[in-house]
Amino acid sequence: MNKQLVGVLGASGYAGRELCALINRHPGLKLAFATANDQKGTTIMAGGREVSFIGTDEAPLGDVALVFSALPHGTSGAWAERAVEAGARAVDLSADLRPGNGREGIPYGLTELMRGVVQGAELVSNPGCYPTAILLALAPLFAQGLVAPDAQIVVNAASGVTGAGNSPKRELLFGEVAEDYRAYGVGNTHRHLAEMRALALAMGSGNDLLFTPHLLPVARGILASITVTLAAPLPDPLALWRAAYGSEPFIEIASGPPSLREVSHRNVVRLWATEMAGTQRPTLMIFSAIDNLVKGAAGQAVQNANLMLGLEETMGLPT
Amino acid sequence: MNKQLVGVLGASGYAGRELCALINRHPGLKLAFATANDQKGTTIMAGGREVSFIGTDEAPLGDVALVFSALPHGTSGAWAERAVEAGARAVDLSADLRPGNGREGIPYGLTELMRGVVQGAELVSNPGCYPTAILLALAPLFAQGLVAPDAQIVVNAASGVTGAGNSPKRELLFGEVAEDYRAYGVGNTHRHLAEMRALALAMGSGNDLLFTPHLLPVARGILASITVTLAAPLPDPLALWRAAYGSEPFIEIASGPPSLREVSHRNVVRLWATEMAGTQRPTLMIFSAIDNLVKGAAGQAVQNANLMLGLEETMGLPT
Amino acid sequence: MNKQLVGVLGASGYAGRELCALINRHPGLKLAFATANDQKGTTIMAGGREVSFIGTDEAPLGDVALVFSALPHGTSGAWAERAVEAGARAVDLSADLRPGNGREGIPYGLTELMRGVVQGAELVSNPGCYPTAILLALAPLFAQGLVAPDAQIVVNAASGVTGAGNSPKRELLFGEVAEDYRAYGVGNTHRHLAEMRALALAMGSGNDLLFTPHLLPVARGILASITVTLAAPLPDPLALWRAAYGSEPFIEIASGPPSLREVSHRNVVRLWATEMAGTQRPTLMIFSAIDNLVKGAAGQAVQNANLMLGLEETMGLPT
Amino acid sequence: MNKQLVGVLGASGYAGRELCALINRHPGLKLAFATANDQKGTTIMAGGREVSFIGTDEAPLGDVALVFSALPHGTSGAWAERAVEAGARAVDLSADLRPGNGREGIPYGLTELMRGVVQGAELVSNPGCYPTAILLALAPLFAQGLVAPDAQIVVNAASGVTGAGNSPKRELLFGEVAEDYRAYGVGNTHRHLAEMRALALAMGSGNDLLFTPHLLPVARGILASITVTLAAPLPDPLALWRAAYGSEPFIEIASGPPSLREVSHRNVVRLWATEMAGTQRPTLMIFSAIDNLVKGAAGQAVQNANLMLGLEETMGLPT
Repeated sequence: MNKQLVGVLGASGYAGRELCALINRHPGLKLAFATANDQKGTTIMAGGREVSFIGTDEAPLGDVALVFSALPHGTSGAWAERAVEAGARAVDLSADLRPGNGREGIPYGLTELMRGVVQGAELVSNPGCYPTAILLALAPLFAQGLVAPDAQIVVNAASGVTGAGNSPKRELLFGEVAEDYRAYGVGNTHRHLAEMRALALAMGSGNDLLFTPHLLPVARGILASITVTLAAPLPDPLALWRAAYGSEPFIEIASGPPSLREVSHRNVVRLWATEMAGTQRPTLMIFSAIDNLVKGAAGQAVQNANLMLGLEETMGLPT
Repeated sequence: MNKQLVGVLGASGYAGRELCALINRHPGLKLAFATANDQKGTTIMAGGREVSFIGTDEAPLGDVALVFSALPHGTSGAWAERAVEAGARAVDLSADLRPGNGREGIPYGLTELMRGVVQGAELVSNPGCYPTAILLALAPLFAQGLVAPDAQIVVNAASGVTGAGNSPKRELLFGEVAEDYRAYGVGNTHRHLAEMRALALAMGSGNDLLFTPHLLPVARGILASITVTLAAPLPDPLALWRAAYGSEPFIEIASGPPSLREVSHRNVVRLWATEMAGTQRPTLMIFSAIDNLVKGAAGQAVQNANLMLGLEETMGLPT
Repeated sequence: MNKQLVGVLGASGYAGRELCALINRHPGLKLAFATANDQKGTTIMAGGREVSFIGTDEAPLGDVALVFSALPHGTSGAWAERAVEAGARAVDLSADLRPGNGREGIPYGLTELMRGVVQGAELVSNPGCYPTAILLALAPLFAQGLVAPDAQIVVNAASGVTGAGNSPKRELLFGEVAEDYRAYGVGNTHRHLAEMRALALAMGSGNDLLFTPHLLPVARGILASITVTLAAPLPDPLALWRAAYGSEPFIEIASGPPSLREVSHRNVVRLWATEMAGTQRPTLMIFSAIDNLVKGAAGQAVQNANLMLGLEETMGLPT
Repeated sequence: MNKQLVGVLGASGYAGRELCALINRHPGLKLAFATANDQKGTTIMAGGREVSFIGTDEAPLGDVALVFSALPHGTSGAWAERAVEAGARAVDLSADLRPGNGREGIPYGLTELMRGVVQGAELVSNPGCYPTAILLALAPLFAQGLVAPDAQIVVNAASGVTGAGNSPKRELLFGEVAEDYRAYGVGNTHRHLAEMRALALAMGSGNDLLFTPHLLPVARGILASITVTLAAPLPDPLALWRAAYGSEPFIEIASGPPSLREVSHRNVVRLWATEMAGTQRPTLMIFSAIDNLVKGAAGQAVQNANLMLGLEETMGLPT
């Protein structure tokens, strides 16, 4: 089989390195270049092969079929568009081009819900890690109109430290993070809220969304714990997600609360839900677990790239 | 100063060992015996001194001023009462004698709220670790009637593994817990709910309480993240807790979200609250952090014992 | 391609589960059965597929081309021999059939050094995790007679907790292992010494071997730090290992001290060596890192099975 | 009791913060100032009290009885001497003034071995963390001339990350250190070697010293594993250390290999030794565990300060 050439901009971060590893193991893609201005000239191992970083300015954008842009927010989106101008397709992993961030209309690569617009697209905006876990959990409820109209949707989520990137910061040192746990982005101020609100609205929900992320002493993984008051009791909650996602290769309906280890290094969302006992109003607790670097970033980006390039959607993706 | 004699039943568990350490460093208490049926004859170091375990049946209950009972749930309460019959005072650390667990009327040792009944009491039931963190956070709201009557109080909490005890179980092995995170006691089924509901009712709140605990890959600490819809906006939320707890030696009002490290090995509750932005109904996010083995168990037990024995409440307690 | 059937005895331990995962992803092997007496009837996910455990007595040993036996020491070897009697080939992962353990003459599957006897063998004894890391590091020195005859070879090694299995033991709980580090099997008493001494002798070294393992607060990985006094200075130490292992697909000569993360989930040994500065006698420090569950157990077992079954040695093995 | 005033230069690092905490809990010392140029104006909690950082240039060196200098190597020693010129006593925690580092003759604060010169001294150079653990383990062997004259002393040691300071570096991020382990300062190049060699020589040992430190995924603690070939067999090795250190308040002779948890937050060295089985030459394995921030830095500095100021040596130090 003829492999299609792809490139990665911003390849030295955690998401960028994961992209290089996935591409190097992908049967249909070949890594043509990987850029990292601050580590130009450095060689790393990724997916069993060596990858040498070049400067972003040196990247031959027009020579590849598709460019993944994993540059910092504020820079990444423009580079993805530059890649499209040069004749490549592009997947942007930053917040720059996502719904709710000021640039509407660009296909949003939450693949399971957006296949129609992703297939064959020139430019796709890859979702944030938290929105991936949370929106895939909530979508079936929105689709069936099951959320009580006056309900507040309470999302408490926890992420491993790779979600904060690998730039050296004191608060991310091992000596600070080990044996610790805390909330951050408190008071409904996290960057991913805009994106989640835009999508929830598009799915017909005007409910208050209350989102509080926490920093976990683990390297990778996100668990979202979501509380939703229902319009009416839902006797068999799992049936809802099974009906919505039964044939999805990357969505698992678990038989108990999912854990980070169960999804580690895999391109899956693992979901479970249960009714809360002893309440006056019918209330659901929903859990959604992903690997923040795979289904929450690089894996979903490759899933989108597969569709954009006419490949099998599951190709090269670990389950 | 003449030290008063105390004993510990069930001293080999994490809470029991912490009790021994606190007592051995306490200027007003002296450890007369420590029991552990499964480790009878073993000697450990605690608080810089050696402690040798005897069988629980061999404990001279009547020879001490006060007995701490940290035996398993279902057994512990009866031993505490036996100690009282033998002429000692007793603090029971199990759920057996707590409100909502079938035996009402026994003083509940949530010290800051219950000083009146603890002072000089013969028998005190020590609160659970989660209720300690959660009820101290919520009490000022209940006292002022600030929670919206139709609101559901959503409590997501996370605990270190010492909260699950030190009996060998596969799911608590390092190889299973490291790099993992998951919910447990899901669907509003955790043992501590009864106790929290009883107290909330007593403080005038009939709101649904939705409680979901999670297991953290840390040894010690609890963080509760609490969402409350308010009856009306609260412009300066921290003022409420400052007014309620301003002079409390073991309650800290933080200047940002508290973390586990900040309370590690200390007998304090560390609180912070903030309004949620962009919501239709005024909503508060409250965070409460404790060391589950200190303020959540052994430390609070000593705090209660101090009051029961006529000592200074803060004596021997690390801040 | 026609897949050959294989079975796993003792599949619920860490090595057994890793074997199931490797087999389920292997292009030339198909898992016919997996046994686990204590978890009979349980289903787990391994390598993206479900595996259901049967009792070891129920295993149709004669229906498969090869049986991996990962049962406890003392039991495993006999089951491997039973599999051979039933007409299958067998790889035993226990110490039962290894050199120095009382049953000599069975091919020892330290693949890179023993290809001749492993290829096409009916029964192979898979090396211990520590001996794999240590013997591959030392072999080139022995082969060239470079160790000073009077030298003591000092091996300090550290292993992740999965090396101790997943039977529940108090000292392996997260609350005990996190933030801890200690030696075990002290005083030259570890089970793997017999095997290492037998092999060292076979390679011509009668030097004292001083082996001290340590328990690391990580899930997986082994690092051996080896001190060797040389008969004469070795100006370019890495050249020795490059010459010995240059074309080996599973041996990497690093450019600095190797780390556990670099070999995690990979079937490789990563080696590095340097001369010690400021000493009176020429002395080498050698470092060898492996993933204890892959190259140190399940991966090497599959590597051996590939050779025994006439498959490509590298087939299905992650690098 | 009248508390004596002390100050801390370089108080924002891990050792500096530990110093502030110890001083704030010390019954005989009072913290007059704490400096941190990069965090000037910041307030932290240490030892249950608030500490506000001033610039190092603003420190009133002459107003205190003693200054602890925990500034970076290369700067710290000169500041300690400036404090002495200003009329204070000083303990320097850097390598600047230690033996073997170019400035001989300054009292070396390995307290248990150097009480005579520390008592009442004006200026003391506080030992490195590794030398503290290693020299206290080896001293009794040197004192009795028990090491074989031709022996190489092999020291493998492992340290928690706080030993590397809290300046943000990529390789110290939680995402890099968790689940990892590696050697550093390889080839006998670590800064602490000079100091250990100078002391070993002073104690009569000309043996090769082979020192290899490793980085552990824990916050605090050092374990040194030391191999020594003896001139003659030593039937009861522990008797040697018991005889040498029997009455020392800060040295514990353990009954098995010591672990990091056993010494955490304590100002002690915990030692154990055993003969190696099955060797041709009599060989000892010695283990020495300390908390790198307490006995390995701040605790020992306070121990020295107590002696310099005429206080009880153990005052304010946690055991």
